[in-house]
Amino acid sequence: MPVHDTAREMARALRAREISARELVAAHLERIDEVDGRVNAVVTRVPEQALAQAADADARLAAGEPVGPLHGLPIAHKDTHLTAGIRTTFGSPLLADHVPDADELVVERMRRAGAITIGKTNVPEFAAGSHTFNPVFGTTANPYALDRSAGGSSGGAAAALASGMHALADGSDMGGSLRNPASFCNVVGLRPSPGRVPTHPSALPWATMAVQGPMARTVADAALLLSVLAGPDPRSPVALDDPGSTFAAPLDRDLTGLRVAWAPTLGGAVTVDPAVSAALEPAAAVFAGLGAIVEPACPDLTGADDVFRTLRAWQFAATMGPQRDRVKAALAANIDDGRRLTGDDLARAELARAALFHRVREFFTRYDVLLAPVSQVPPFDAALEHPTEIDGVPHPHYLDWMASAYLVSAAGLPALSVPAGFTPDGLPVGLQVVGPPRGDLLVLQVGHAYEQATQVGRRRPPL
Amino acid sequence: MPVHDTAREMARALRAREISARELVAAHLERIDEVDGRVNAVVTRVPEQALAQAADADARLAAGEPVGPLHGLPIAHKDTHLTAGIRTTFGSPLLADHVPDADELVVERMRRAGAITIGKTNVPEFAAGSHTFNPVFGTTANPYALDRSAGGSSGGAAAALASGMHALADGSDMGGSLRNPASFCNVVGLRPSPGRVPTHPSALPWATMAVQGPMARTVADAALLLSVLAGPDPRSPVALDDPGSTFAAPLDRDLTGLRVAWAPTLGGAVTVDPAVSAALEPAAAVFAGLGAIVEPACPDLTGADDVFRTLRAWQFAATMGPQRDRVKAALAANIDDGRRLTGDDLARAELARAALFHRVREFFTRYDVLLAPVSQVPPFDAALEHPTEIDGVPHPHYLDWMASAYLVSAAGLPALSVPAGFTPDGLPVGLQVVGPPRGDLLVLQVGHAYEQATQVGRRRPPL
Repeated sequence: MPVHDTAREMARALRAREISARELVAAHLERIDEVDGRVNAVVTRVPEQALAQAADADARLAAGEPVGPLHGLPIAHKDTHLTAGIRTTFGSPLLADHVPDADELVVERMRRAGAITIGKTNVPEFAAGSHTFNPVFGTTANPYALDRSAGGSSGGAAAALASGMHALADGSDMGGSLRNPASFCNVVGLRPSPGRVPTHPSALPWATMAVQGPMARTVADAALLLSVLAGPDPRSPVALDDPGSTFAAPLDRDLTGLRVAWAPTLGGAVTVDPAVSAALEPAAAVFAGLGAIVEPACPDLTGADDVFRTLRAWQFAATMGPQRDRVKAALAANIDDGRRLTGDDLARAELARAALFHRVREFFTRYDVLLAPVSQVPPFDAALEHPTEIDGVPHPHYLDWMASAYLVSAAGLPALSVPAGFTPDGLPVGLQVVGPPRGDLLVLQVGHAYEQATQVGRRRPPL
Repeated sequence: MPVHDTAREMARALRAREISARELVAAHLERIDEVDGRVNAVVTRVPEQALAQAADADARLAAGEPVGPLHGLPIAHKDTHLTAGIRTTFGSPLLADHVPDADELVVERMRRAGAITIGKTNVPEFAAGSHTFNPVFGTTANPYALDRSAGGSSGGAAAALASGMHALADGSDMGGSLRNPASFCNVVGLRPSPGRVPTHPSALPWATMAVQGPMARTVADAALLLSVLAGPDPRSPVALDDPGSTFAAPLDRDLTGLRVAWAPTLGGAVTVDPAVSAALEPAAAVFAGLGAIVEPACPDLTGADDVFRTLRAWQFAATMGPQRDRVKAALAANIDDGRRLTGDDLARAELARAALFHRVREFFTRYDVLLAPVSQVPPFDAALEHPTEIDGVPHPHYLDWMASAYLVSAAGLPALSVPAGFTPDGLPVGLQVVGPPRGDLLVLQVGHAYEQATQVGRRRPPL
């Protein structure tokens, strides 16, 4: 059963007719049946539709028709991404029976590229927070330790990747939602630059802190999916113009002379669990061994915390205000925070965001990439709503433990989560490779070189 | 004296060494001396520096060194654009002696392309409003009727173009500042798409309602300058990626079958002075004569007024709040409006802007361009702060008369002001050619075809 192969290998085998799309989809549906009772990642499933679409795909290939780069590959879409005719709940009882009429843009692109939709992946309620539990479907387990969090908000996507339920996944990331679950589940997640993956529909189409992007088990597979997701679309006013094909080329890059900034605590901005620090510590030597020049360095992130929390609260209030009384308490509190904001508060945040952008931009004239922890903690007890302390330091708010990811969001930078190691308990730890503005290809290339050198992502969960 | 030639003709003659840069600059300085006592457009002048730079330019050409596309062309920069070593007042007594250390990005690009800075063009105080007067330099006169407004905020730039003081000019446009002065002075002004011309420094670099762009006496010259101003720069997070060279090619385009929406009152959203309407009325037939399909049509602009006024007030409060007590009353009132805004007000405006964007985007799947008045009024009495009624309808606020321009800003669309005709009093009237998002090249091509057919811009002022 090839469910642990790379998506690129699956795509090759499909084109070579070594396997049919129907067989590949069936294998994944079987894998879901086998393990998802324990993981709870693919919470809505459309097996009949998927098998029918796979049969169509096989027929097209047999007829010699052109097929797309994702031809025949099964994907379950994040349950915050609209799927035509398939229930899309956002993890909220308010939308438990919501069946959209149309696919949203990224889903449309994946389907057009030949992907076969097999279902939807679990999310926190309205994707708020980085731990995947909700009143509709419950909690997604970490495949490496079923009593631990899979991260979030793309937690179902990441757990399904790690478990062999699909080889490619879509996600979204405002404050770490593509990166934390990748880190927790020993897979790859790319937070692209704003506009790299155009988003539609979007209530705030000019807002650039929330982005959509690819997840996979390898960096090359994430790049394959990005090549389908990226490229301009007239429905997004902030879309970048580079075509998706920019990301289709091989990622091989010689790291000799690469200027790497090593920032294990983001310059003291975050507290990191010693088990995470220990797992990441060898990465500096790996990069040095690849010829890179590794130096301790971090841009000044002053103000980034206020930028993120202010703009996030405002966006939640703007888009979810009418649902305030019908969402989980943590989210309602964020909406309340947003409702208290004045125009002056938003001005302060935007002016600080500008200053931050220029500081990090200048930093990246001296360094090519920045390395940092994705998450400050290893996968935590899934029964908790969130961790409340790190290395003895209280972190009371549900956002507190995510700063290593969300400070990077505030700075507007692309960032990759790539498997880096394990805690002594066998829990995955991801390395965050942060690039300059619009430097998506560079972070993929650097992450790919690191992945090739370490092969950490090959360690599969005991399922 | 070639001061009324096109910039393209001047550039050709310079390269062919039919004229030297020193001669061309000297001719323009003489023209300024001759007429600017009456017009008051180029309010700071650097003749010695300009002649020295021109001599250097001549030497470089003589030595066979490569020269840029604006080699030897004299330009006075808008006095809100930072110029290294040259006083930049923003029309405010607060900055009357302000000499920047560095050029801002657009000035840097023009200088690098070979332009010779001859001075600075007049603006309203902090570019607020569309009539060019300020306590530092006084009022800029309309070259076609010296007792009339030249428009604004790029009023000095437009008046200098019309008068032969320079052949290319830079400007900026939040609510019509590149278009109203072009309309009033019978020249060309392009409000580019957001991000087309990257802006730096900028206090709010993600804000997309204020843009910078080119002005000239012909559309082809505006495109020439845009080819220098456009293209990505890492200092602007919203910069579009297309290179400036996109706009360097000839603009010739066959308009046969072009779908033109004719919107003489923007669907009833604005009141237009009958003299303006009468001057524009033949344009529909001109387009029909060029083979276009002209139909009465306009997108639904509901909410655009609130979007513009809310976001403008917020931006003024955010960036100019500390100067509130030292600026003109109209601007102080806008800052006060901005300070009263809540996060919820801004959410309402941003949600409305999104809905507006999608309505106009969909409109432009059915039409290629929209034609509308640039200004609702002809050039008005320069002694007024602003018009207060149009065709008998009260327009009390200083922004009221500018809606035909600023509603287009709120919608995020590129728009060209191109000379279209004259009132019975001989006052210029511009046609606004509005394109789809990022459709800058299309509006230039369409404006060029219209200009070639009508030649209205050739009528020079009686100076």
